[in-house]
This record gives sequence, C-alpha cells and structure tokens, in this order.
Amino acid sequence: MAGSTLGTIFKITTWGESHGTGIGVVIDGCPAGLALDTADIQSYLDRRKPGQSRYTTQRNEEDTVEILSGVFEGKTTGTPISMVVYNKDQRSRDYGDIASYYRPGHADFTFDAKYGFRDYRGGGRSSGRETIGRVAAGAVAAKLLRSLGISFLTYAKSVGPVEISSFDPDEIPKNPLYMPDAAAAQKAQAHLEDCMKNHNSAGGVIECRINGIPAGIGDPVFEKLDANLAKAILSVGAVKGFEIGDGFWASQTDGNTNNDSFYMTKQASVGKQTNHSGGTLGGISDGDTILLRAAVKPTPSISSPQKTVNKAGENIDISICGRHDPVIVPRAVVVVEAMAALTVCDAMLLNMTARIDSVMDFYTSGKDKAASGNTDI
Amino acid sequence: MAGSTLGTIFKITTWGESHGTGIGVVIDGCPAGLALDTADIQSYLDRRKPGQSRYTTQRNEEDTVEILSGVFEGKTTGTPISMVVYNKDQRSRDYGDIASYYRPGHADFTFDAKYGFRDYRGGGRSSGRETIGRVAAGAVAAKLLRSLGISFLTYAKSVGPVEISSFDPDEIPKNPLYMPDAAAAQKAQAHLEDCMKNHNSAGGVIECRINGIPAGIGDPVFEKLDANLAKAILSVGAVKGFEIGDGFWASQTDGNTNNDSFYMTKQASVGKQTNHSGGTLGGISDGDTILLRAAVKPTPSISSPQKTVNKAGENIDISICGRHDPVIVPRAVVVVEAMAALTVCDAMLLNMTARIDSVMDFYTSGKDKAASGNTDI
Amino acid sequence: MAGSTLGTIFKITTWGESHGTGIGVVIDGCPAGLALDTADIQSYLDRRKPGQSRYTTQRNEEDTVEILSGVFEGKTTGTPISMVVYNKDQRSRDYGDIASYYRPGHADFTFDAKYGFRDYRGGGRSSGRETIGRVAAGAVAAKLLRSLGISFLTYAKSVGPVEISSFDPDEIPKNPLYMPDAAAAQKAQAHLEDCMKNHNSAGGVIECRINGIPAGIGDPVFEKLDANLAKAILSVGAVKGFEIGDGFWASQTDGNTNNDSFYMTKQASVGKQTNHSGGTLGGISDGDTILLRAAVKPTPSISSPQKTVNKAGENIDISICGRHDPVIVPRAVVVVEAMAALTVCDAMLLNMTARIDSVMDFYTSGKDKAASGNTDI
Amino acid sequence: MAGSTLGTIFKITTWGESHGTGIGVVIDGCPAGLALDTADIQSYLDRRKPGQSRYTTQRNEEDTVEILSGVFEGKTTGTPISMVVYNKDQRSRDYGDIASYYRPGHADFTFDAKYGFRDYRGGGRSSGRETIGRVAAGAVAAKLLRSLGISFLTYAKSVGPVEISSFDPDEIPKNPLYMPDAAAAQKAQAHLEDCMKNHNSAGGVIECRINGIPAGIGDPVFEKLDANLAKAILSVGAVKGFEIGDGFWASQTDGNTNNDSFYMTKQASVGKQTNHSGGTLGGISDGDTILLRAAVKPTPSISSPQKTVNKAGENIDISICGRHDPVIVPRAVVVVEAMAALTVCDAMLLNMTARIDSVMDFYTSGKDKAASGNTDI
Repeated sequence: MAGSTLGTIFKITTWGESHGTGIGVVIDGCPAGLALDTADIQSYLDRRKPGQSRYTTQRNEEDTVEILSGVFEGKTTGTPISMVVYNKDQRSRDYGDIASYYRPGHADFTFDAKYGFRDYRGGGRSSGRETIGRVAAGAVAAKLLRSLGISFLTYAKSVGPVEISSFDPDEIPKNPLYMPDAAAAQKAQAHLEDCMKNHNSAGGVIECRINGIPAGIGDPVFEKLDANLAKAILSVGAVKGFEIGDGFWASQTDGNTNNDSFYMTKQASVGKQTNHSGGTLGGISDGDTILLRAAVKPTPSISSPQKTVNKAGENIDISICGRHDPVIVPRAVVVVEAMAALTVCDAMLLNMTARIDSVMDFYTSGKDKAASGNTDI
Repeated sequence: MAGSTLGTIFKITTWGESHGTGIGVVIDGCPAGLALDTADIQSYLDRRKPGQSRYTTQRNEEDTVEILSGVFEGKTTGTPISMVVYNKDQRSRDYGDIASYYRPGHADFTFDAKYGFRDYRGGGRSSGRETIGRVAAGAVAAKLLRSLGISFLTYAKSVGPVEISSFDPDEIPKNPLYMPDAAAAQKAQAHLEDCMKNHNSAGGVIECRINGIPAGIGDPVFEKLDANLAKAILSVGAVKGFEIGDGFWASQTDGNTNNDSFYMTKQASVGKQTNHSGGTLGGISDGDTILLRAAVKPTPSISSPQKTVNKAGENIDISICGRHDPVIVPRAVVVVEAMAALTVCDAMLLNMTARIDSVMDFYTSGKDKAASGNTDI
Repeated sequence: MAGSTLGTIFKITTWGESHGTGIGVVIDGCPAGLALDTADIQSYLDRRKPGQSRYTTQRNEEDTVEILSGVFEGKTTGTPISMVVYNKDQRSRDYGDIASYYRPGHADFTFDAKYGFRDYRGGGRSSGRETIGRVAAGAVAAKLLRSLGISFLTYAKSVGPVEISSFDPDEIPKNPLYMPDAAAAQKAQAHLEDCMKNHNSAGGVIECRINGIPAGIGDPVFEKLDANLAKAILSVGAVKGFEIGDGFWASQTDGNTNNDSFYMTKQASVGKQTNHSGGTLGGISDGDTILLRAAVKPTPSISSPQKTVNKAGENIDISICGRHDPVIVPRAVVVVEAMAALTVCDAMLLNMTARIDSVMDFYTSGKDKAASGNTDI
Repeated sequence: MAGSTLGTIFKITTWGESHGTGIGVVIDGCPAGLALDTADIQSYLDRRKPGQSRYTTQRNEEDTVEILSGVFEGKTTGTPISMVVYNKDQRSRDYGDIASYYRPGHADFTFDAKYGFRDYRGGGRSSGRETIGRVAAGAVAAKLLRSLGISFLTYAKSVGPVEISSFDPDEIPKNPLYMPDAAAAQKAQAHLEDCMKNHNSAGGVIECRINGIPAGIGDPVFEKLDANLAKAILSVGAVKGFEIGDGFWASQTDGNTNNDSFYMTKQASVGKQTNHSGGTLGGISDGDTILLRAAVKPTPSISSPQKTVNKAGENIDISICGRHDPVIVPRAVVVVEAMAALTVCDAMLLNMTARIDSVMDFYTSGKDKAASGNTDI
C-alpha cells in the first residue's frame, strides 16, 4: 500500500530509488508566505552528504536540490512544493551478484517476499539515499519552526560502545562524528578505525533536543506527540529503538524520582523542576525541552565474509565489496532531526484548532481580511 | 485535532472518560464473516481489570463489554462494530482538590494548556481507563490474526530494577506480575512491597513476541511495520521507550554480530540463523518472530508528598490519596498486546494489494462469485 | 474497508443498524469550549423523525439522543463526543421474506455481493436510520458554524415533477414538504396522494443555501469545497445527483452569461454581481452564498408488485408490505443540511493554517497563554 | 492544508503550476508487477493536449511524460511512481495585467483570499494544466483496470445547448468534439463557430460508461463508490454538476419506473432488467455498467469585455487576450475518464479485504509463497 506519505496538514510524499533518475519529495500543506530558497534546503542536505570524513562513504554524490513548484517570488504559495535531487551516477553497471542473493541485514529478502521482485541497484527504494527526500522536506519544516522560535540540537550520544560523558554543544560541529564531547569523539574514532581494519561496522545513539515548543502540542490517545515522534524516527532505515525523556531508564526507577515537580517560573508560567518526562505528559508537550533518542544499528554492509542464500535457494558465502560507511550515525544525525521537525511542524499546525475561542478569534477578528460576500446586493 | 482514530483498513476510534457514562470503541473495516461474541472481548478485558492482586488497584470495576452493532448471527458483518463498557461508578463526588492543581507526572497541566480546561474526574480522557477501548478492539484483531496462524506472547521482562534471568512461558500466568521467571517474580514482588510501604511506585519493561507473521508485512518508508508498532506502543499512556529486536543494544554491537545470516530451512523457505533484527528488515517482516519491548514508567500517582502548582499560580504541596496501582505493568501487558495486534492486523490487510498477480487472482479466479453484470441483455 | 469515517480535523465515525441496539456517532476533533447539550442535537434529529405528516412513515420512532462522552460542565472538552440513539423497537420478528430475496432499488443484493451475507433486519446498515448519526454530528457542526456567523437554509425545490416557482423562506416550515412555495407544496401533496393511491413513490430535489462563509475556504485540486460537498451529499443513500450554482444548466449557457463580474462592495470588499458559480471559484469559497442541490430518487420501498430474484437464484414476484415514506425528501432535508455543515466545518478548521502569518500570529501573539517552558532554570 | 493527494491504497499526489518548471504526479500504492512504460501514459496525455482542432487552444504544448521512479525492467515495483511533464514554455513574460486584477470565473480572487497572494503566471496551480498529473496517473489506473477486464467509454453528451440524439461509439473518435452522434457533432461545431465569432465560449456534458466492474465495489456510508466518483469529478476545475444513472431525472420520476428489477442471467448470475441506478445500489456496484455525467461550465477565459476589480480595489473593465479554448469539453473527456479510473481502481483494491474468507485464502493457500519463518530452529 501507499507508505511514502507522512503527515496530516504538513504532508510529505517521497519517491525515488538509489540508482534511478533521482530522489524527490512533494510537500503539501506548507502555509503560504514562508520565505524559501534552495539554500535553505541545500544546507540540510549537505549535512547528510557522503565523503565528509574517513567515516562516511567516499562515493561522490553532489546531491544538489532543485525546487520544481510551490515557490513563487521567493515565498511558498500554499500549493505543493516539489523538490528533486537527480542521481548523478546512473550509468549502467553489472549488479549481477547483488541481484541474485539476499544481503544479511538488508531489505533485499523482504522486498522480494512482499513484491515478488525488486530494484536491486544500490538497494533501490530501501537505500539510505531514500532519506534525501526526508531531509529536504525536514529543512522546510525546520525553517517554518524557526520562525516560531523552535530550534533543534542533534548529535551522536554514542558510537558503538563509546558514550559521551560530558556535554558541550560547541564541540558538536568540530568532530566528524557530531559528538558533544571531544574526548569521547577521539575514542569513538579509534573504535571506528578498528572496525574498518576488521571489515566490520558500528552503530550508535543519536539524541535530539527540541527547544521552544509551547505546552499543548500533540493530541490525546493515538496522535500523541511522542507516539508520532517514535513512528517518524523508527521509519528511518537502521533505527531499532526510541526513547523520550528517561526512556528505558524510567522503567527501572521509582515514581518519587521520575515525577517532575511543577513550579511557577519567574515569568509566571508553569515550569518543571526536572525533565524526566522529556517534554511530554500524556503525549502532549509540557513546555519543556523535548528530548528523544534513536538507536541506530551497525551498518549492515560489511566486507567480511557472510553466509546467506541466493534466489535459487542455495546456501552461499558472500563478501560485499564497495565503498560503505563504517558507521552511518554521523550522516543520520540530520535525518533524525528532519523527521523530528516534520513531526513537530505537523503537530503545531494541527493544534491551532484545539479551542473554539481560537477559531472564533481567527474568523471574526478581521484577520481573514479577504472575506466578503456581496451582502449589499 | 482528531487523535482517537488509528489504522487504515482495520480502523478503530475510541471514546470515553474515566468517570463519564462509559468507555467505547468503534472498529470499522473488520472483514465480514469473522465469528465474534462478547466472550472473545471479555477475556481480553479481564486481563486488564483491577483487583486481581495486591499490586493492582483495589477499585471494583466490572468492565463488562456490550457489542452494539456490526455483529449479526454471531458473525461480523463488515460494518462498524461498536462496543461499550459502561462506567459503574459515576456517582457525583468531590473532586475539588484534583480539579484545582496539576498532579506531577500526569496530563492535567498539558490538557489545560491545550484545551483551556479539562474533565478532571479521575483523569478524564487521559485516565488509564481509556485503554479499555484499545483492549476491546485488540481482542477482535487478535481473534482475526489467530485464524491466520498468528499468536502473541506478552509478559513483564522487568519490574523496577528486577529483570528476568530465565524464560519459561508456562510461568507467565502463574504469578501476578506475568513474569516468565518465578524467581524474578518473587524478587519483583518484594520490590513492590517496599514501594508500597514507602508510598512509592515502580515501572518495568513489557516484552511481546508475535509468531506466525509471514514475510512481506509492512510497507517501505513511513509505514514500516516497526514504525507503526512504535507509534502504537508509545501511544499507551505511560510508555517512554520502544525497541525492536536488539534495540538499543544493537547500537553498541558490531555489524558482524548484528547481521542475521540467511539459510534455507528444511521447508525450503528462507530462514535466519539468529534474530537480532526482531523480525523486520527494512521495516518489512522477515518471517521470523517479531520481538518488541515497551518501557513503562513508574505509576505517577503516589501518596507521598509532592510539590506542584495550582490553577491560581501558587506553588503548593500535595499528597494524592486513593487506591492506585503501585505498578501498572501487569495490567499494561494486555494493552501492549492489543496495540501490537491492531497494528499487525492492519498491516496484514494492507499487504493484500501488494502484487498485481494477487489482485488479478482475486478478481478473475471466480472467487468474487457475486460479480455479475447483465451481459446478456 | 473502513467507510464510516468522514473528515480530517472535524472527523465523524458512525455506526449502527436499523434494528440493532442503536445508532451512534463519534465526533473527534471538535474544538474545546463549545457550549453543547442534548437539546442542540435533538432539535436536529426531530427534523428527520418519522410520523410528522401523512407523507412520512407512521412508524413510532422516538430517536432520543444521549451524549456519552466529550462534554463536561456543558462544554465540549476537545476529546471524542460519543452520541447514541437507542433503537426502541428491537423485538424479534419474522424477517424471513426480506432475508431471502433482493428488493429492487435497495442495497440488499450489493451487500450480499460484497460481504457474502447481510443484516437484513429493516435494511441493516443501509437503512435510512443510518442517517441519525450524520444528523446528530451535523447538529454539532452547525452549532459551531453559527458561532462563526454561518447559517443554513435547506428546503425541497421539487417533489416528483412539481417544482417551486416562487421562493418565500417563511413558507418552508409551514408545509409538511418544506417547500418555500405554498402553491407548489399544495400541488406536490396532491401528487403524493396519487402516489400513495397507486402504491407508488416520488423523489425530489433538495436545495441548500449556506450564508456567511468567508472567501478562501476549501483547498485546491482534490479537496475543493464543492468536491467535498459533492461527496458528502452523494454519500446519502438515495441521492443520485449534485449541483453547485448553475450546475447542469451552466453546461448549456455561455461564458459571457456564466461568468460572475466582480465589483467593490460598499464595505470595500470584493463582491460578485451574480452568483452563477454558487459561491465557489476553483473550488474555494468566493464569499458569496453557497448554493447546492441534491437529486433524491423515489423511495424504492413500494407496495405494488415487483419482479426480483431470491437467494436460491429463482425469478420471483414480490410485494413489499409495511409502513414506508411515499417520499423521503422532507426527512432528507435535514440530512443534506447536516452533511453540508460537516463539510463546511471541516474546511473552515483546515483553512486556519493556510498562511504563515496566521500561524505566527497564533503562536507568538500571546494567545497561546498556557505555553511556557522552564526557561529560567 | 494538503489538498493535492487522493486515494487510500492507490494514492496520488500532484504538483506543479502552469508556468513553473513542470507538472507532476506521484502514484503510491500501485501493485508491483504491472507492465508499464511511458507509451501507456503518453497515449492518455495526448488525448488532452491542445491544438488538436479549431476548438482547442492553439498553444504548442508537447507534454511529454517522463517516469522518474517506481518502474524497473518494465514493471512497477510497488514503490512510488514519479512522473513529470516539464513545461516547455517558461520564458519570462509580462504578466503585469493578469497579476493586478481578478478574472471573472477564475480562481484568481479566491487564491488571493486564501493565501494572500498567488502565482499568477497562466493561472498557476489553478490552470487547466494541473490536470496533466491526474491524466498521467489515471492512465496507470486504467491500465491496471484493463487487466481486470474493466473498460471506459467517455464522450461528450452535449456541447452548449446541442445534445446528442443517437449513440454510435464508433463515431466518438471521428469528430473533434468526441460526440457519439455525427449530426449533433456538426451542429455543435456550428455553435462553437458562433461562440468564437462572438468572443464567447461554451460548456457541455461529459458522459462516462464503465464496463466490467464486478458487484460489491465501494463501501457503505461515506466511501460509497458514487460518492467518491462525485468528489473525483467535481474536483476537476470547471465541473459544476454530477449525476449517476438517471441522476436529476430520477427525482422527477416514480419508484415503479426507477426501480430496476432483478432477474437471473443466462450465466446464473444476478442481472438487472434496466439500469436506472447507473450501476450502484447503496453506493456499492451492482455489476451493471457504471454510468456517470459531469456538467462542464463554459470556458471562463473569453476575450469580450468584462467588468471586474483590481487588487487596488477599483472597479475596472478588462478584455482577456490570448489563445483560449472556446470549449474545454473535448480535452476534459480524458480528464473525467482519468478521475473515474483512479476512483474505481482504489475502490477495487480496498474491496479485497471485505471478507474474512478472502483474507484467510490469501494467507493460507500458499499464494504468499515467500512467507517462511525459521520454524525448524
């Protein structure tokens, strides 16, 4: 069924395969009047592009975005924003091997099981390149949210077994792993060198902090803000776990510790003394920083020998060649941020109809200036 | 916005507040012809009812379900199945205190922030009683899945800091905490006795194993099976984390370990030597057991003194009286199972249109016997 | 699949069969704070209840609505509003005949073709009683819209071949057919007397005028206001046609005549000299009266002899006994109005996010007073 | 809000403006394995391209489609099919006039009222070129339906006041108006010559017959097949009315006439002696030909003088120059067919889960061959 559309108001639809003509996304429902140009998108895409360090694939992918519709005179028009990144490298190759067997840890087998066959070139639709559409759309959502005072801070909390033990946001862009702890980043790089030597790979944990979300965002029961964040994050290829606030740790602690006491802030608003909740209560934002984590599995593409089966139903031994990321965490940081931005943006727009007095205010305060009707006829 | 509807084909809509007239659910899209009676539902609801042990609230809630529509002569008709559990205890009470302040760890503040006011009686819509609708619907989904050979095994993996160290499924129904390890269950009960003495509470981890799902279920990109499971599980009130397969542990290990090798089974189908993936690859089921975990926070209702604010904007000290569960894990086991069943059921139905040959087979093999047309006129 | 849910923000789900326990609806997404009690709903339901005149069925149906959730202290809470009308007359009867054959003009055959069997008691889910849920929900939508200055005027434009030739709104409630032309109403009643004598039935056209909708409501391409009105109206059982503005007549006229000239009104807003468009241009409201029409087919339940087939595959002759409406137009007037109200209400709420300046105004003008965050920690 | 997505399983999202980079569509949810190449799409697009006769605009638009994703080795892969038609003629022009005022009968005013500004170049998103995406997607839906034995016959039933009085399907492609009556086509062309002389325009009625749909398609209550057809058809820019079967005429006739008697066909299936219903009963297909009609308004772009207002709020007189269709009916024929195909295709896919025995048959009859599970471990 249709699985490439996400969101209710701010709705995105992605398309494209790794080695097809291109990768794209259509954003429908973006409010009109938002200043937008390709630079806004490109800066996000550049954060996921390969070849930035020893620890990301050395493939040469420019990934230049084009806006095909929905922007006029530098502003969004309210109609669909279509964006595309054409694949540079579509030359015909020999994909014979990869076509004939199922790579462990990849979606080759499950695509065949579902559809009967698959576009095997570079992973087709299940390639990491699929995230280009997400990141391009997330850049628009993030720009919209910035105008509402909402900002994101996303980084690697751990790489393989190496976890940060201090937190300095200024450190994040200074190391190729986007870790907020220089010492940990050093250790993590040493770990990756080992991985590379052993034809092995590593995973990690990405953490995202969202500041500036007012209280009241998200909807009770199934459309909880954290439930939609979980779906958005788990929909990223290699993610195997999600936490909000204290997450799994909360399950081991006690109520006295875990409950965040409320207090009146100096601005006479309601604050919390602690943030074990991670910024949501009952699935609705509580005005505090949203804190979420994504567990990323080790890159499944490794060049050491592996056992698998081929389409003829034989047990075989394989070694996957090619240029692969020993860890995808650094490039996935912006993907997690994009998915969080898309989710929050949609929830913010959906929240605007929560109260009848807001609706009345919108329609009767003269803000809807164009409204008319030929009442004097 | 509308947050109480879930699913695309097998779609549920829940309603009701803790102390209103009742709690209900409408299932729309259940295939016609499924044998169904209230006993199928009641057996699920009984697993979440209070008063089953020292460790669940002693409130007397019968929670008897009635089917109001959609079943005729013992079978589902294909039209909406409406079910209700009337609240027995709706007598007017003094809710003065709870109405005036925000309980830490609860959704009181966020509901007010969103809607401007709230039904404060027993937590209103954010009460744990809201899950009655989920469980009733989940019972129908589970029955449908049973007819397809799919079964669920759900249990407490840990309670507070006490984790299981062995796994015996027969043990699960024998202890009040639904743990598959008798010794751990003993230790966990001792922990809960301590909690109760200290007016404190505990959380835990619920694990769910789903057997019998064929490969190919779930859809690429945003409607991945694990992404929808994550959303469904996180939408349960007290859940703060979700894992599939090795989950967060996968982030610390390496690709060589984490990749599950494929091999040909004796039945000449594709199997996996291990199940680190937890039964999904690329978000699509791989034919193996689906293994997921939910982190449940400690019950926020504790009777020890807490600090909070009231609606007048004053910092106050409170103590919450009443009968509360020191841990909700045992009662939440069936809720997690219900959410998993709803998600899998919808994904199974959605998968039926994945291939054109299945569509052609359905419409041209004479299975659609009623089809006609007055072609001889 | 799930066909009983309608709407994106203001979302309704109906359930129930003619002779089941009851008929109900859940409204999810109604803004919080709307004053609402059962009288608001009942007044709408009373407009569709039978037995009001010689020309509607003489069955005794009280159709008393109960609100089960979502209203607290007289106001909507923002959570699902569940409403039910219990069926008074559920005594076991002999439905043998109707169960065994397919009534011409009814959905008996198509339900069997789709689902393999059907709840044949009184038409089951395809009974006219199904509209109770629509009308109850429409009453809430209409009340919300009234607070925004939007009103509805709905009436019979024709009954069988008898069409109105004058328009006096005061006349509408004075005749049992809700026609705005006393002379036409007389002729139509004579026509219905003939129908009844001949065991025959009549149809008619219902017209609905919606005043007060500001310009800008509805969304380009597929979610055009008139497209959604068409769907909502055609979803009513006996409706076979839909028009907006000049409708089919527009197809016969010319551009010079059909184009409505714009002019500046005395209030310095944009008005139209004529309203051939029926209040929408490009599917978006133009500030003028929305004018739509629904073509209602003659009641298929007639007591004169008819030819049909039974489930055994035999050609048979039947005569349907029982109390039936010779025309359903008078009772369908409020159903058409309800469907229009639901559609407009959803479109009004969806429109609130159309411009980024509205979004910024909502979130930054201090209107979202509850928003906070512990920024001073 | 997001208005450019349609469908539940077979879901399309369109994008693009008249004078932007291009017009496109993404189809998501098309079953895998359907043979598809650009020729399948192009043949549909060619039916709507301008310059085919004196009665369509003489603009030179090639409208060549490219498939960007979702097709591999000549077959659909089950993942999104992205298609684009690049606009050839994007050179910068002087649009000064059209930018400053509101053309009568167009969406200029309503777009401004909604969004605050608009892409005024050639009508922007509300241009007739927007239908390119619909037609491209409809071509895929139609191809899928052909493989199920479903075919479409679409034609002009009337142009302006000239209606067909005979029906010869072979005549349809022989005249530039696609009328199935040569004499009427002659008269209609004479009428159009008059329109052109008078700088005026005409509308018409398009009729569509769909053959081969089995009984049982469409869903009760809101997702009725005819309700979704009505929405799809009314969503086409210039359509002002919709009928199924006898449509508005049904409202004037009587039950005895309008009811279609059932009988057993020679193939021992259920047939109807007549087809007043137009192929649906209770919103579900009855196995007979689906017969629907769309009322198309006269082209609003006329070069005779008109009165309107400009953005400065002044009453002005205008004359619209340029190459315009004196009637859009001939080019809209394929658009109506495309919308019908999209609607039927989605309904057919949705119907596959209507019965539990179909679901069980699908999953347990060995058809889902890929399914496995490592049950022997």
